[in-house]
Amino acid sequence: MDTVVTALRAALHDPDGAVVRTDPGVLDGARTDKSGWIAPGGPVAVVEARSVEHVQATLRTCSALGVPVVPRGAGTGLAGGANGTEGTVVLSVARMDRIVEVSVEDELAVVEPGVLNGALNAAVAEHGLRFAPDPASAAIASIGGNIATNAGGLRCVKYGVTREAVLGLDVVLADGRLVSTGHRTVKGVTGLDLTALLVGSEGTLGVIVGATVRLVPVPAGEPATLGAVYPTVQQAAAAAAAVVAGPERPSTVELLDALALEGIAAYLGPEVLSETVGSGSAGGVFLFVEFDGAGATEAALGAVPRLQAEGGTVHLAGSAAERERLLTIRRSFHAAMESRGRVLIEDVAVPRSRLAEMFARVEAIGREHGVSIPTVAHAGDGNLHPNFVFDGDEVPAHVWDAADAVFRAAIELGGTLTGEHGVGVLKRRWIGDELSDDVLDLQRGIRRVFDPAGILNPGKVF
Amino acid sequence: MDTVVTALRAALHDPDGAVVRTDPGVLDGARTDKSGWIAPGGPVAVVEARSVEHVQATLRTCSALGVPVVPRGAGTGLAGGANGTEGTVVLSVARMDRIVEVSVEDELAVVEPGVLNGALNAAVAEHGLRFAPDPASAAIASIGGNIATNAGGLRCVKYGVTREAVLGLDVVLADGRLVSTGHRTVKGVTGLDLTALLVGSEGTLGVIVGATVRLVPVPAGEPATLGAVYPTVQQAAAAAAAVVAGPERPSTVELLDALALEGIAAYLGPEVLSETVGSGSAGGVFLFVEFDGAGATEAALGAVPRLQAEGGTVHLAGSAAERERLLTIRRSFHAAMESRGRVLIEDVAVPRSRLAEMFARVEAIGREHGVSIPTVAHAGDGNLHPNFVFDGDEVPAHVWDAADAVFRAAIELGGTLTGEHGVGVLKRRWIGDELSDDVLDLQRGIRRVFDPAGILNPGKVF
Repeated sequence: MDTVVTALRAALHDPDGAVVRTDPGVLDGARTDKSGWIAPGGPVAVVEARSVEHVQATLRTCSALGVPVVPRGAGTGLAGGANGTEGTVVLSVARMDRIVEVSVEDELAVVEPGVLNGALNAAVAEHGLRFAPDPASAAIASIGGNIATNAGGLRCVKYGVTREAVLGLDVVLADGRLVSTGHRTVKGVTGLDLTALLVGSEGTLGVIVGATVRLVPVPAGEPATLGAVYPTVQQAAAAAAAVVAGPERPSTVELLDALALEGIAAYLGPEVLSETVGSGSAGGVFLFVEFDGAGATEAALGAVPRLQAEGGTVHLAGSAAERERLLTIRRSFHAAMESRGRVLIEDVAVPRSRLAEMFARVEAIGREHGVSIPTVAHAGDGNLHPNFVFDGDEVPAHVWDAADAVFRAAIELGGTLTGEHGVGVLKRRWIGDELSDDVLDLQRGIRRVFDPAGILNPGKVF
Repeated sequence: MDTVVTALRAALHDPDGAVVRTDPGVLDGARTDKSGWIAPGGPVAVVEARSVEHVQATLRTCSALGVPVVPRGAGTGLAGGANGTEGTVVLSVARMDRIVEVSVEDELAVVEPGVLNGALNAAVAEHGLRFAPDPASAAIASIGGNIATNAGGLRCVKYGVTREAVLGLDVVLADGRLVSTGHRTVKGVTGLDLTALLVGSEGTLGVIVGATVRLVPVPAGEPATLGAVYPTVQQAAAAAAAVVAGPERPSTVELLDALALEGIAAYLGPEVLSETVGSGSAGGVFLFVEFDGAGATEAALGAVPRLQAEGGTVHLAGSAAERERLLTIRRSFHAAMESRGRVLIEDVAVPRSRLAEMFARVEAIGREHGVSIPTVAHAGDGNLHPNFVFDGDEVPAHVWDAADAVFRAAIELGGTLTGEHGVGVLKRRWIGDELSDDVLDLQRGIRRVFDPAGILNPGKVF
């Protein structure tokens, strides 16, 4: 594969390999992401693009040579979608990380794809604005990657997912052409909505090189935060549904099941839980609910009886410090899991009315397969993250069997394989369980329109 | 064209023509919509489908015979997108108007496409829910049509456009196959987002026969409503931008320019204005701002100084009756225009920061072409509806010249041809001014994936 490296260095005017990297460490790093899945082979080069021209030249060169290209951002994906597989060129846009423009009046930002979600939020905070999508990985995940996976997060129960936050895109097609979709306006129906189509397309349609994203005002005042403990996950799920269906929309509704809470207690020390949510929390299920904006406190007070009606012991945070303690419980979940071993984080979603049933299924599947599956849910969206903790580098077969049962259960309950992480490599074999052959044919047809030779991210999603 | 009628009646088991209509009155009615544009020729039949099977049989038959099909809902479009042109079969889904399911817990409804927006809202009101998109035509427009055009409305500044309200679709493809996209969950990224792609596709990709739509809680309490009068449209536009950028999101921000307000005063009687917004309103510009939900009154009070800072005389409605009077001013705009002659309602959008400039352009274009162009704007979205009033049935050439100048100005200011009405027939000739050839090629390619023979709504959009 020296040919492609030589051709890329010539096309990118990079004789010394500063952009077209072939160092073993760099190649190796691009084989994996935050899912922990490591591609069995590896890429022949990692192009660390600094400009749209680099991206165009890379795609033109790889198209001409028929070499597959794996678009990659910050590498924080959870489904293997950006992992460099055997014989590919990984096209990283992580170094294209300039915030090109912030328009306070139009409440938008124009960014390069490698800008980190957290960096954009830090930059626009002085204007009282923020980019609403807040995946748990916000500090380390790029906006381009958020767009490629249609990332969600804790706030999307009120503020919507990434799709709602993207106004327009600059995209380089497989043959190197640069196209722009969408506009700087919040509305627009001229022709088909290619912007929405590109959001969540996981690098299979084009390489995002620029984005015009919506910013929203940071809500006034302090949020009002509630923690509630329930004897059973069914009660907690019912409470979550009740609070979301209430007159004021909560900005966050997170549910930690008993195994998750037990893991957090072990990680943080049991006193943290008993001090925060009471000593009765052992074996309990935790629900974190937050309201923001004007009337947040009234809304939280209004939610208390709804939470109690389902059997919850409810705590309203009386200070910023108390709020922080409640938030710490939720925030510590991933660290608590990772302290126990390697983790496979799954991402199913079900209609909210089936949330309790889905938790029951996860529990039953865990018992049946002899696997502990601590689960956190963006309960307001019916989006569960069952976590499978295991030893060693490879996901063991019995864990995949349990995950398989979880996927099938979610689809059976009218849900989906993936709420916000994407299909990537790891969920590809289940896509046919959710989508009909006719729908898959349409999707493959659209992919061929954008990329007739199929050089973009082959083996991912489809 | 007797062949196609005979074949359709056989395929739909409709020997008497109760479904496959050919009465001249029915054929004639299907040549037009609320834009007033009448197709020069006319359809050979109007299929008044009662079921998915009718839609499938119609498309199979027309595919086999190569006869073009125009999907149609309630016929309230404003761009000619559903008008039956020469030699087509109009496939009306207006009679597929059942609300199949309302899930209060999942805050969704499953509907047939012919359900009227207003009818759905009436049906779910008892559960304290509503379908957020609220085009001015809500009482007479169908959900299927709302989806086909990605309809907006007054509330979308806070609640988003139709795309955000659609979770899943059942669609019959040109060859008669029925496919389902999306899910009952609020999140999901399994494969490409065909649901979002179909929203706003104006009948060019498939015929929507079912939709799972999101419902949202009706905000608690009464809204808080402000009316403000400004000496100039530039001040009013600046005030609109300031109020949207404030910490609490208004649920409605509508701007009526001086010509619009003058027309309304003539229609309602001048005393209505002077009683409501003061005698200083002659020659003034009117801004209607509303907040809803908890803290609405506080939010409105907080907005008053922002509105005053731009030179407005601000009135906070002190009672439901006062609110109604302010709302009546906005609501009477279309009736006021229609009382003066035939109306061409345009629909450009610009970034909010260019709203004042766009108003100035519209005014200058009106002067230059000797046309009066009263304009209302969903100012929070930068979406303007310049109205061209004329005599006779046909839009005169000088009106199209002025409209042409308006479209070009909107695109020049970073905006779009159409914010919420769609391209249809009437804006087709400008689509190339907004979209590049490469983007149009992608769109045509996608269309071919869905409808290789191009029988769906030919001559519309593209």
